[in-house]
Amino acid sequence: MTTPATPSADSAPLPPPLFDTAVVAGVGLIGGSVALGLRQRFLARRVIGYDANPDVLREAEALGVVDEVRAMPGEWLRGADLVVLAAPMRALTPLARDLAPYLNPAALVTDVGSVKAGIAAEMEALGVRNFVPGHPMAGSERGGVTHARAALLENAVWVLTPTDHTPLTALSRARMLVEHLGAAPVVMPPEAHDALVATVSHLPYLASLALTHMVARDERLSLLAAGGFRDLTRVASGDPRMSRDMVVENKVALREALARFRRQLERLEADLDEPEELLAAATEGKRTRDSLPVVRRSLLPPKHDLVVAVPDKPNQIGAVTQALGAAGVNIKDIEVLAIREDGGAMRLGLETLEDVAHASQILREAGFEVRGRS
Amino acid sequence: MTTPATPSADSAPLPPPLFDTAVVAGVGLIGGSVALGLRQRFLARRVIGYDANPDVLREAEALGVVDEVRAMPGEWLRGADLVVLAAPMRALTPLARDLAPYLNPAALVTDVGSVKAGIAAEMEALGVRNFVPGHPMAGSERGGVTHARAALLENAVWVLTPTDHTPLTALSRARMLVEHLGAAPVVMPPEAHDALVATVSHLPYLASLALTHMVARDERLSLLAAGGFRDLTRVASGDPRMSRDMVVENKVALREALARFRRQLERLEADLDEPEELLAAATEGKRTRDSLPVVRRSLLPPKHDLVVAVPDKPNQIGAVTQALGAAGVNIKDIEVLAIREDGGAMRLGLETLEDVAHASQILREAGFEVRGRS
Repeated sequence: MTTPATPSADSAPLPPPLFDTAVVAGVGLIGGSVALGLRQRFLARRVIGYDANPDVLREAEALGVVDEVRAMPGEWLRGADLVVLAAPMRALTPLARDLAPYLNPAALVTDVGSVKAGIAAEMEALGVRNFVPGHPMAGSERGGVTHARAALLENAVWVLTPTDHTPLTALSRARMLVEHLGAAPVVMPPEAHDALVATVSHLPYLASLALTHMVARDERLSLLAAGGFRDLTRVASGDPRMSRDMVVENKVALREALARFRRQLERLEADLDEPEELLAAATEGKRTRDSLPVVRRSLLPPKHDLVVAVPDKPNQIGAVTQALGAAGVNIKDIEVLAIREDGGAMRLGLETLEDVAHASQILREAGFEVRGRS
Repeated sequence: MTTPATPSADSAPLPPPLFDTAVVAGVGLIGGSVALGLRQRFLARRVIGYDANPDVLREAEALGVVDEVRAMPGEWLRGADLVVLAAPMRALTPLARDLAPYLNPAALVTDVGSVKAGIAAEMEALGVRNFVPGHPMAGSERGGVTHARAALLENAVWVLTPTDHTPLTALSRARMLVEHLGAAPVVMPPEAHDALVATVSHLPYLASLALTHMVARDERLSLLAAGGFRDLTRVASGDPRMSRDMVVENKVALREALARFRRQLERLEADLDEPEELLAAATEGKRTRDSLPVVRRSLLPPKHDLVVAVPDKPNQIGAVTQALGAAGVNIKDIEVLAIREDGGAMRLGLETLEDVAHASQILREAGFEVRGRS
């Protein structure tokens, strides 16, 4: 028997946890994953889940996502040295207002919202000194604490957006938290973050929605809508309320991105009368698109693509994945590139150059034509 | 031994071919596939390949794509009762001008260009009476006669766009040709076709190009560019010259589509101040997107989707496809839905409801959570 205070001689003592008492406020997919990461990686002595929904708390406790649960804000919050606000976008500000009166001024406070300028200003107005706005860029098709898992955050880009008033010690503690959860911190001002996500996420959502509306209630259009159109409208298939909240919260940056998008479209439209200019634009666009990282976690081990030509025979997707599975090659991502599904090409995302070499050999021996790029 | 004129008693005589002498002018991916379909399905007594490039002709002959080849227009064309113009968009009109003086007035003439009003008007100006403009909606990642195959056209939507002057007998022969090649004819006026492809293909290309240009030369943007952004910009990765030619040829209809797209974007932008309106628009957009057919060949056997939740363990794509492959289920399409590649969900496109039931059972037994829709 050992006690925490006196580890036995044959087991190395655990390092002291980064935090004593962590509170995760809002125990959904992201909050639950943060709580699991804190527990599984021994980053806090205890993790308290706070949620207004008692069903969520029961489930979080039953799944072992948190050590303790609380349904009402109160004096118990003063014991927390880490508070993570993990409510959905529209509930973040009310949540912050509910908890602010009880927060320990020394506690590190952070959030996980996907838009940053508003909450940063709100927390300053509330006088929460050690607040570091954050945005872990992770998600899943399935929400809720049931699907929470520590691995969701591993290797994810996690943007931290300190303001001019954020204490450097708080930023440094937040960065350590992110790194210890296995994610990759990227630091930038809130406004820069919001402008970036407006461009790469919120504007594409609105464009996708606009395109989708153009084919609504027209049978012939949806008949002719091919692979390219499906690709462009996939994000319109996400949760309408979450998507709506995201774009409304970021409407200032989004309007600016929309204005730039319109200028790009106008330039391309003008180039319809200048075919050489349009060819240059198309060529430059292809170069940019082809150089985008295949998966988001590009800070970390580089990912590699392998393109496999598949003949017009049945079950070629199965043949490719089975050959690689049998050889122990782990397919990290897969994308069907062909316009028609009975022949064409597919792209495999692999982890290492060794995997690429191994997979290329296996697939060539199985009679497939392959091309790699990293 | 039998001769073509006297089939033996124990083999049923082949039906007479639809055409005596077919000419495929431009022997690339589509032209080569048409030629192969004509030969393999016994639709013409002989198939002549015409191309300005002698290397292409040599390859077409060596691959058995055509029976004979010709490198120059001439009197030999008068013997053709079917002429398929299959050059790239920008070469179609010059090709038509080169061949027109030699065409037999009774020959059925069609083309495979992806924009229709221009070529329809051009052929009328040239006095080609039995011309039926066509657009087989098929393609492949890989071009050229080397990759031609009759199956490319099977079950493809093939739009035929007669004008007010097109003889009904010519339309009827063209429709029979398309059906005998295994494709699904859809008939509409050239202007309607051009407006539809402007909306579902050319406008999405320009939007994708505009988005791509917005992240050019910005490391941070490409770092944060996630799956959704990749989806929206995939079509910008196509061949720049072919894409450029397509949108320039269709610029009238494309400008109209751009104007409607701008109005949709403006309405969504205005709705940023009307969150309830925006929620309704997002909900309606999701409904429309979710009802799009998963593959284009929706005229034909319906396709069915199965969504599989995959846990955060290595090689789950392989596990799913191997389980189905071992059970003989043919995966027709595959799409990774998850935002992160180490967990989430994938969508499988299956051919029959039996396949869906069979695959669901196998995957559930293997411990996966599945949802189907058709």
